[in-house]
Amino acid sequence: MTVEADVRAFIQANGDAFFADLAEWLAIPSISIDPDRADDVRRSADWIAGALRRAGFPAVEVWPTAGHPAVFAEWPAAEPDATTVLVYGHHDVQPVDPVELWDTPPFEPTVRGERLYARGASDDKGQMLFHALAVRAHLAVTGRSAPAIHLKLLIEGEEEAGSPNLDSLVRGHADRLACDVVVNSDASMWSKDVPTTCTGMRGVVGARIVFRGPSSDVHSGSFGGAVRNPLTELCRVLARLHDDQARVAIPGFYDRVAEITEAERDLFGRLPFDEREWLAKARSRVAYGEQGYTTLERVWARPTAELNGIWGGHRGPGLNTIIPSEAGATVTFRLVAHQEPLEIQHAVRRWVEDLTPPGIEAQVEFYADGVRPILTPLGHPALGAVTRALERAFDREVLYTREGGSGPSAVLRDVLGAPVVFVVMTVPDDAYHGPNEKVEMPLLLKGAEAVAYLWDELASPGELR
Amino acid sequence: MTVEADVRAFIQANGDAFFADLAEWLAIPSISIDPDRADDVRRSADWIAGALRRAGFPAVEVWPTAGHPAVFAEWPAAEPDATTVLVYGHHDVQPVDPVELWDTPPFEPTVRGERLYARGASDDKGQMLFHALAVRAHLAVTGRSAPAIHLKLLIEGEEEAGSPNLDSLVRGHADRLACDVVVNSDASMWSKDVPTTCTGMRGVVGARIVFRGPSSDVHSGSFGGAVRNPLTELCRVLARLHDDQARVAIPGFYDRVAEITEAERDLFGRLPFDEREWLAKARSRVAYGEQGYTTLERVWARPTAELNGIWGGHRGPGLNTIIPSEAGATVTFRLVAHQEPLEIQHAVRRWVEDLTPPGIEAQVEFYADGVRPILTPLGHPALGAVTRALERAFDREVLYTREGGSGPSAVLRDVLGAPVVFVVMTVPDDAYHGPNEKVEMPLLLKGAEAVAYLWDELASPGELR
Ligand SMILES: [Zn+2]
Ligand SMILES: [Zn+2]
Repeated sequence: MTVEADVRAFIQANGDAFFADLAEWLAIPSISIDPDRADDVRRSADWIAGALRRAGFPAVEVWPTAGHPAVFAEWPAAEPDATTVLVYGHHDVQPVDPVELWDTPPFEPTVRGERLYARGASDDKGQMLFHALAVRAHLAVTGRSAPAIHLKLLIEGEEEAGSPNLDSLVRGHADRLACDVVVNSDASMWSKDVPTTCTGMRGVVGARIVFRGPSSDVHSGSFGGAVRNPLTELCRVLARLHDDQARVAIPGFYDRVAEITEAERDLFGRLPFDEREWLAKARSRVAYGEQGYTTLERVWARPTAELNGIWGGHRGPGLNTIIPSEAGATVTFRLVAHQEPLEIQHAVRRWVEDLTPPGIEAQVEFYADGVRPILTPLGHPALGAVTRALERAFDREVLYTREGGSGPSAVLRDVLGAPVVFVVMTVPDDAYHGPNEKVEMPLLLKGAEAVAYLWDELASPGELR
Repeated sequence: MTVEADVRAFIQANGDAFFADLAEWLAIPSISIDPDRADDVRRSADWIAGALRRAGFPAVEVWPTAGHPAVFAEWPAAEPDATTVLVYGHHDVQPVDPVELWDTPPFEPTVRGERLYARGASDDKGQMLFHALAVRAHLAVTGRSAPAIHLKLLIEGEEEAGSPNLDSLVRGHADRLACDVVVNSDASMWSKDVPTTCTGMRGVVGARIVFRGPSSDVHSGSFGGAVRNPLTELCRVLARLHDDQARVAIPGFYDRVAEITEAERDLFGRLPFDEREWLAKARSRVAYGEQGYTTLERVWARPTAELNGIWGGHRGPGLNTIIPSEAGATVTFRLVAHQEPLEIQHAVRRWVEDLTPPGIEAQVEFYADGVRPILTPLGHPALGAVTRALERAFDREVLYTREGGSGPSAVLRDVLGAPVVFVVMTVPDDAYHGPNEKVEMPLLLKGAEAVAYLWDELASPGELR
């Protein structure tokens, strides 16, 4: 028998028990943004801690934070100089409203066909639990009593609340979390027929720009046409955020941008992208963006500026003939390697100041420090190991995606100094933040299988160290 | 004795009684926008109706409307072909909040020095009541038993609520209100030392522009940079509302604009304008507007576009990383003679449509039909009569202003086909919409005096008919 046949046989034999366990965990409504569910989030942490102990992890700890607890588990390799891997994911879940849109109750896991329906089934409990199965398969098939790599898991409890305490948690436990590579299992792959891994996520800088004119609203009949209107001036500045090629027009914005390589473009181009389907998800009628790039390149590999909101003066019905005293807007900049959030903040501030006319007072504020982009280049050995592990599990070519959004991986990369790779078994139609969240059950087992191979792949001499 | 001396003597003799009457009227809190004050507005109408009857008006009627009642009074001339004059003003008042900022209660009229403090003292009860004194002075001094002109008064009860029923009231009573000239006594003059009359008011068109993009908010990480953001596109259009000379950049906007004449520029230029004082009122740090015009010309004689409000996407604290589904703004256009509101609406709609990019659905709505501008040119005989009457009352040169705002006069001009002139005795520091509204008592008596002369001036053969 091949190794693959052995791994599959082990996982097959343990599949029913795996899904029974998962259903138990999914019944705990660990909604992190609901203060009334704090006990449930703790129960969820305790549950996965117990499950990891049962799987054989010699060290499992529940780490408190200023918010909800995280779970840390560690299974050292027999060889002290083995590669160290940190798996990242979360045990909290999204809210479930509007609950009446669910076909079955969100916390009563229900199997229909090959799908398991429940809040958290794909995001992220299903993807966390397959790591417990994966390490057992890895040990059973290799005959080891400890994994071929130092294995660590960090399962946080606040990801769906924006990971407000992750940075301090990781910094506070940096020695325990130290690793050579981070395996993120909290993202999605292209589709169940097109296995992919993700090579990067965009960073983000959030800005709030406020323009102040008259010290209070003044009548637009009496003064209109003779003083600066801060709302007009704000629109004039925001209109210059992009040039006519839809490029961000802030001086210096692109200075550090790593151009997408021809190799990655070609690989992106091989994904079965259907613009009509994509537009349906974007709820938009036409694709539009930076000239010279495809839609996927625009959302994955190019930096952007998006207005998220604006306010100023009168809103609501009717007319209120004022020159408003102030107007403001929020803008998020998505960044790609190797843009630096603090440099971008500086460029944004200078750009606003340069365009602010006399008579207007501009205020530019940023939401914290921003998030740095992450990118693991195609030739990186960790990415090679993931690719081979997935190809063994799926028996077909593995392609590459990126994430347009930003995530906690950047914190792990920055604090721990390790590259981030992705083993993710959620697919876009899993509805992971909506009603009727589900997971494809065969994909969770594929995830366990791929990870069982990955610990071997990463242990091969010369891979990472 | 001169006529002037006789008129002054009569008014002086009746001054105490005049202010006692006015105080009685001012004690009635006729706040038209407060539904709880509806009875008071009616009492106010009844009070002025009674006062006009006591003054000798042979016909006084309280006219109901869908809202608050108006008062109509008529005193025919002996000569059937005499000039007909319609005086316009209102008996309702502004609200009084924040009432704690008043030094004395707003509906307990209080004299301090030569000033009478009360809500409505200047806007507009004081200016209405001097017409009752004026006609009596006119009759007493000329020895007539009826005025030299057909005198009509229309004192509405909803001006501070936006005159929602004035149009239908005037159309419904167009035969009773028919006149050769409208005398508006609901505006302000330059200052108590610089007597002025007003030659025009700007018109107004109010527009609401909404841009729709994605059919619901979508995540700016997942889709940012690859679809049209309706908020960005709205800003890009609104930024093009003005060119770099602060002129409105909508094609055709200036087509019908009557340029200010050199004579009027010169007269405006003789007003003792203090830019620092003006900026304090505008609560702004710098004057700014259409190149080639002074501040007064900009607010009085030039059309403008002002953004009054904007909304779309996230507001309030924090960041919400969305591409909003829609964004909207309200804009008011102030018009000058001879711009037509419906033509401007058409131009605005076409301009928005021309600039709306693919993928965005634009909606442009207008608030009713708008208000047409009014302008009584400097050479107009009615304006000449007003000028002479004011010069006789003040014994000094009379200058000219305009109003930047828009008012009900346009309805009277349009429906009745008569020019509008202004005899106004309120001054800018009367605080007519704020706490501690007051009126300069000597100015109200000057108003009575000027109007006593005006009925003679307008009766002179060849003035208007
Ligand atoms: Zn997640
Ligand atoms: Zn008024």
